[in-house]
Amino acid sequence: MASEVTKITSGSLIAAEKVEGTDVYNPQGDKLGSVDDIMIDKVSGKAIYAIMSFGGFLGIGEKYHPLPWSTLKYDESKGGYIVNLDKKMLENAPTYDINEEFMWTPDYGRRVDKYYNAPSYW
Amino acid sequence: MASEVTKITSGSLIAAEKVEGTDVYNPQGDKLGSVDDIMIDKVSGKAIYAIMSFGGFLGIGEKYHPLPWSTLKYDESKGGYIVNLDKKMLENAPTYDINEEFMWTPDYGRRVDKYYNAPSYW
Repeated sequence: MASEVTKITSGSLIAAEKVEGTDVYNPQGDKLGSVDDIMIDKVSGKAIYAIMSFGGFLGIGEKYHPLPWSTLKYDESKGGYIVNLDKKMLENAPTYDINEEFMWTPDYGRRVDKYYNAPSYW
Repeated sequence: MASEVTKITSGSLIAAEKVEGTDVYNPQGDKLGSVDDIMIDKVSGKAIYAIMSFGGFLGIGEKYHPLPWSTLKYDESKGGYIVNLDKKMLENAPTYDINEEFMWTPDYGRRVDKYYNAPSYW
């Protein structure tokens, strides 16, 4: 239904449907994975977490990694996000399985924020 | 791919993929349409526009209405957004056709912001 909308972008704005699928790199320029979804605060409209999908990169199967939005920097030249996190950090990070019936809780959010040393949303 | 993620929500957070499809009402509680996509600032992650799809309500065919995010208030009890805009206001608002090759420009953004008397993003 929104297939046309995904084409819409300007220098600074991007459609949420287009963020989904945007590549994520480490500072060395290696592709880590891509953004699968964004968790948004309903009231302020602020993106709080990027839900990353790292695919095979880490060799741990298909898992979702919620990252605090503040850990992502947009890089115009790469057309993607850079995260300054090494493989070990990502391997031990809070994740959930793609096929899991997952319920986001404030406790889980606090755990994510603390792991990445990000300002807590909760 | 992200079908499981769309289930994830908490009291205050919502997945972007779930915002897409959220109903929009007027203050009288009449359904106006739904959110089709969100335009996000790449750097800050802040939602700037909700791209509304009003369907048949206005009798003007399938058009997208970009609304400044600040015009939307989330209503927990309705599980949707309320906009305080009357039919006449929406009929004369900036829109674009679903099948149009649309390029978002700063000029267009300023026109939208001005129309709704919203703080300008541009």
